[in-house]
Amino acid sequence: MSEPFRVGLLGHGTVGSAFAALLSERADAIATATGRRPEVSGVLTRSQGDFDDILSRSDAVVELMGGIEPAREYAVRALEAGKALVTANKQLLSQHGDELLAAARAGGAQLRYEAAVAGVVPVVRVMRESFAGAHIEKVHGIVNGTTNYILTEMARTGASYSDALEHAQRLGYAEADPTEDVNGKDAAAKMAILARLAFHASVGLEDVPFEGIEAITPDDIDYAKEFGLVLKLLGVAERLDGGVSVRVFPCFIYGGHPLASVVGPFNAVTLESPTITEVTLSGPGAGGPQTASAVLGDVVSVMSSQGMDLDPIEELRFIPGDEVESAFYLHLEVADKPGVLAQIAQVLGDNHVSVKSVVQKGMGDNARLVMVVHPVAEGRFNAALREISKLALMRSAPRSIRVIEEEFTS
Amino acid sequence: MSEPFRVGLLGHGTVGSAFAALLSERADAIATATGRRPEVSGVLTRSQGDFDDILSRSDAVVELMGGIEPAREYAVRALEAGKALVTANKQLLSQHGDELLAAARAGGAQLRYEAAVAGVVPVVRVMRESFAGAHIEKVHGIVNGTTNYILTEMARTGASYSDALEHAQRLGYAEADPTEDVNGKDAAAKMAILARLAFHASVGLEDVPFEGIEAITPDDIDYAKEFGLVLKLLGVAERLDGGVSVRVFPCFIYGGHPLASVVGPFNAVTLESPTITEVTLSGPGAGGPQTASAVLGDVVSVMSSQGMDLDPIEELRFIPGDEVESAFYLHLEVADKPGVLAQIAQVLGDNHVSVKSVVQKGMGDNARLVMVVHPVAEGRFNAALREISKLALMRSAPRSIRVIEEEFTS
Repeated sequence: MSEPFRVGLLGHGTVGSAFAALLSERADAIATATGRRPEVSGVLTRSQGDFDDILSRSDAVVELMGGIEPAREYAVRALEAGKALVTANKQLLSQHGDELLAAARAGGAQLRYEAAVAGVVPVVRVMRESFAGAHIEKVHGIVNGTTNYILTEMARTGASYSDALEHAQRLGYAEADPTEDVNGKDAAAKMAILARLAFHASVGLEDVPFEGIEAITPDDIDYAKEFGLVLKLLGVAERLDGGVSVRVFPCFIYGGHPLASVVGPFNAVTLESPTITEVTLSGPGAGGPQTASAVLGDVVSVMSSQGMDLDPIEELRFIPGDEVESAFYLHLEVADKPGVLAQIAQVLGDNHVSVKSVVQKGMGDNARLVMVVHPVAEGRFNAALREISKLALMRSAPRSIRVIEEEFTS
Repeated sequence: MSEPFRVGLLGHGTVGSAFAALLSERADAIATATGRRPEVSGVLTRSQGDFDDILSRSDAVVELMGGIEPAREYAVRALEAGKALVTANKQLLSQHGDELLAAARAGGAQLRYEAAVAGVVPVVRVMRESFAGAHIEKVHGIVNGTTNYILTEMARTGASYSDALEHAQRLGYAEADPTEDVNGKDAAAKMAILARLAFHASVGLEDVPFEGIEAITPDDIDYAKEFGLVLKLLGVAERLDGGVSVRVFPCFIYGGHPLASVVGPFNAVTLESPTITEVTLSGPGAGGPQTASAVLGDVVSVMSSQGMDLDPIEELRFIPGDEVESAFYLHLEVADKPGVLAQIAQVLGDNHVSVKSVVQKGMGDNARLVMVVHPVAEGRFNAALREISKLALMRSAPRSIRVIEEEFTS
């Protein structure tokens, strides 16, 4: 047996301590597999340990502190010193990805970050390795477990957004401050990381517009059921004519869609490529033990491989959201008078928005039109919405949610 | 740029030629990623090429001939000569896995075989690498696309087994001789490979009892719909009290089960472990371009990593099928007389088989009982079936299909 493989651990919170425990539990099996026994060579916390000392005594550094500083500084210094870096830090990767990759190249060191996206779902490895030989056209999926849990609960019980959020907090599926989960920013950071891998290009958080689920109402979920639709918060990174689009938004999908059965705090990501058709990976999105397991998988990979990070080789054009085509669900609270549908249809038609299906619900003060429209440039749809808002017959602001049109039958 | 990475190609059929084309198409991108440009150094077919010559001019050998001989001999010689071997040959791996691994160890060479299981779905890599640090309790899923296509068609259209098979053959989803697909042997070979990875132990095709879908009738699929059940051909490898069980059998699952939405020629595999909870991977199960892409992913990995095959470290006890517990769907064509249900219930009770739900269908000469029973040792259930067969009230032999009990709600 050769020398032990020394792992310096930065951070000792929930994930850090779960990782340390798992490493010691699995050390023998890993030694059998790789020929070297991994061991923690030092732990840095806010109150103890010295980074330089730990760095000098480590073959790889595992960063589980979270946040930008001092995580960024330590990560860059480790990589520049030629030490492999394994991190679960999505903020760091989505905001300082170029800098980390440059440091990895400068130091000839590996940078691995499976746990930063979709928890234990091994999407980073699969993109970097299994499909290193494929040209990826599109990556999309559910990359935030908190919002998926909330939306599942709203659909299942009819609960309001705030009640479902409270329930998620009680069960530990949402944090005390859930802002970045529910407003889509957490998912946007993950999509930036996935888009970088898919497109071999520089993509940062600032390139990913995001919308959250705070404004979703139970009745939208309920009405859409009649069209066979289920609501999800989706991240989408895709090549389109003339560029790429990377976005996060709440979205209806059909009940037979593979992502429709991804419920509760689970994550799922679908990769599409002409060569592979499509591959979907799903599993729990978070949790200390799951994240620790993903980190450990990266450590084992570091022990037995050379780095394979691709330099950014593409210059991307990010297509403005207004030019991207989407189908929409549209909910209009209207006056219960003759000619209402005609007026609405006129405005839609003027803006080249074509109606796929429409249902009139309720009567009198409760009258509303619920419809699904065919894909159209979002700028046109939004122009139609602005005109509709101004019509005298509207009792409140129109509400709209994107729809993924693919239908599946089982 | 360093020396090219030379790939010797054995076999030049559908997959072999798709692989050669993909390799040349992606050579530049792979060179950027790994620092070496892959190229085909020689091709061996039945009519041309010399193995020894190709071996001497290759850094890695890709075996896409299929069948046992001479694929086995070439694979062993390549590995013993220290050349990495990438293969898509499930027969070879499931029947000569120990020999190949021994040759890989003797030669210090890598053995990779992503394309042998579930086509482009990267389950082998994920088990070997992402979850190298996890203790896997269970691997199960749909690992044969032909049968999944046939069962999907039967459920969708009410077609008979033979009509659905013919349809699959016309569309290229089933081969001219579909025997090993429809009888479960193909799936059993794949489950042997997955079980070896999951349990780090020697598992061969001979350890995997299998049942196929040839006897499935449309009315079983139809009746089971009333219980919310969908039929799949499943492979299951799991640790149970006292040993492991690796089997392939047709099986009902509930409509909300993640595998229920895996339709047509798709494959899906779920890995379960206390650390990771569960992860599911799904995608197209076969096809030349998909298999070629999986093979290329392995070649890229060979170019940038050292081998990490685990020696078999566990001695397994394979639990006899009679001792494994399963729930069952049971279909009985009975005489339409008072006391029939009581007689059946008596026999089931005597054998410790407990009924979960029962529906009486039809009248007179068309009367039948359709039921689902709770999990019970299969030996007991089969004893009850034998007794029921002998009852005077039975109009034909009883039919039974296993049921996976997990329910999911969305």
